[in-house]
Amino acid sequence: MGKKAIAEAEHFGEVEVVASSKDKNFSYIPKQYTVPTDVDYFHITTNNTIFGSQIHTDIASPVPLVADMSSDILSRPLDVSKYALIYGGCQKNMGPAGVSFVIVREDVLGHVERRIPTMLDYRTHVEHSSLYNTPPVASIFTVREVLRWVKAEGGVSEMQQRAEARAKLLYDEIDRNTLFAGTVAAEDRSLMNACFVMSAGNESKEQAFLEFVTKRNMIGLQGHRSVGGFRASMYNALALESVQELVDCMKLFEEENI
Amino acid sequence: MGKKAIAEAEHFGEVEVVASSKDKNFSYIPKQYTVPTDVDYFHITTNNTIFGSQIHTDIASPVPLVADMSSDILSRPLDVSKYALIYGGCQKNMGPAGVSFVIVREDVLGHVERRIPTMLDYRTHVEHSSLYNTPPVASIFTVREVLRWVKAEGGVSEMQQRAEARAKLLYDEIDRNTLFAGTVAAEDRSLMNACFVMSAGNESKEQAFLEFVTKRNMIGLQGHRSVGGFRASMYNALALESVQELVDCMKLFEEENI
Repeated sequence: MGKKAIAEAEHFGEVEVVASSKDKNFSYIPKQYTVPTDVDYFHITTNNTIFGSQIHTDIASPVPLVADMSSDILSRPLDVSKYALIYGGCQKNMGPAGVSFVIVREDVLGHVERRIPTMLDYRTHVEHSSLYNTPPVASIFTVREVLRWVKAEGGVSEMQQRAEARAKLLYDEIDRNTLFAGTVAAEDRSLMNACFVMSAGNESKEQAFLEFVTKRNMIGLQGHRSVGGFRASMYNALALESVQELVDCMKLFEEENI
Repeated sequence: MGKKAIAEAEHFGEVEVVASSKDKNFSYIPKQYTVPTDVDYFHITTNNTIFGSQIHTDIASPVPLVADMSSDILSRPLDVSKYALIYGGCQKNMGPAGVSFVIVREDVLGHVERRIPTMLDYRTHVEHSSLYNTPPVASIFTVREVLRWVKAEGGVSEMQQRAEARAKLLYDEIDRNTLFAGTVAAEDRSLMNACFVMSAGNESKEQAFLEFVTKRNMIGLQGHRSVGGFRASMYNALALESVQELVDCMKLFEEENI
C-alpha cells in the first residue's frame, strides 16, 4: 500500500506526496500531477486492493519509477524497461504468502550511503543469486508451478483477457442492478478487486445481501472496514464461472428485494 | 551464525567479540571469557551447524542474553527466563524454510533511538500479534503440525533423549572406528550436527567413503567446504535407524579398507 511506502520512506529521507485520491476516499486514480525532477524516485502502487482502483498502463516518469505490483503482477503484459524497480509479495497472482519478488535495474542500486541491514540490501540478493538466506523452497516451488501454469494457459496476455472478461461481467451487473453501485471511477476500476456498495436508498440491505451470498457458499465478500460494502477479489486463479455465480446472486437478490 | 550477527551489529553499533574458537578452526566452545557489564547485550549462537559444536546448557550472563537457536531449538528443555531474546529460522527443528521464530522479553524492546524499518522492529510484530504482514500461512500451519508432533511424542525432554541417543551412536562409532576422527572437543560436540574426518593417514580415502555411502543412498554427508570431511545432521525428525545405517556403513567401510 502506498501509505506504508510513504511511512517507511519517511524514516530515512524526505518524502513528497505527488498525488493522492484521499480527498474522495481513494475512489479514482489521480491524473493531474507533476513529478519533481529533483527527487530520487517516484513510487506508485499499481493496484489498490482495499479501494479497488488500478493504474492500467505503464506510466511515464521523469525520474526512476518504483512500483509496488503486489496485487496485479502477471495480470497484463508489462513494459518492464519503464521501471527502475518492481516489487511485491507473491501471494495474489504468483504463489503463496511468504515469498516476495523484486525486479530491479542494477544501475539504481548502490546509491545509498546509509548503512542498510544486509538482508534489506537488494545487492546482497543480486550478488548471491537469491541464495543469501535459506530460501523458502516449498513456497518458491509453488511459484514456479504458478508461472508454468500462466505460461501454459497462454501467458500474461491471456491472463489480461480473462481479467477483463471477469471484470466486465461483474461491473456490468453492478451498473445494471438497481440495488448496487460501484465505488470507483469507471476508467480506474481494478480488474483484480471490485468494490461496490448498496445503491442510495438501499444501504439497509447490506447485511441481508451478505447473508444471501453466504448461504450460497460465497465467503469473504465483505469490503474492507475503511470502505464498507463489498469487495470481490478476482485474481488470475479465479474462474469466470465463479464471477457468474456472484452475478446470478445479485440478480436473484434484486428480484427478491424490489 | 555468529559471524553474521557480528557483521550485522557492526553496521549499527560497537561490537566486542568476547570469545571465539577461531584459533582452532571453531573446534570447541570457549569457556574462559568475561562478558563486559557495560554492553547492551551478549549474543551467542547455541549450535554451530557448520563446525558441529554446541552450547549444551543455559549459560549465565551479567547482561541481557541474546541467542540464535536456529539449529537446536526444541532439542532440549530450555530455561527461557534466562534469555532476553531467542531467535532463529524454523527450518531445522521446527518447520519449513521461510518462517522465523522470536521469543522476546518485552522490557528489552524500545531502547533504540535510531530509526528501524517497521518490519525489522520486533515491537511491530508484538503490537500486531504477528499479523502485521500477510503471514506465510502454509509454512506456519506446518510449524503447528511439527509442534503438535513434538508434544505428542513426549515433548522436548523426549527430543533431547532421542538426540542424545542418535549422537552417542554416531560419536561412539567415530571414536571406535580407526578410519575416522571427530573434529570437535568431546564435551562440545553438537547433538544436531556431527562433523568428522578421515583419521590421520587415511585422508586419501575421503572421496571413496563419500561414494561408498552415496551408493547406499545416503546423500549430503559431505562437510561444509570450510571444514572438509563429513557432516551428519541429526535433527529432531531423524530416526535412530538412519544413524544406525550410517554407522553400519562406517563399520563396513573399515572392514573393506584396512
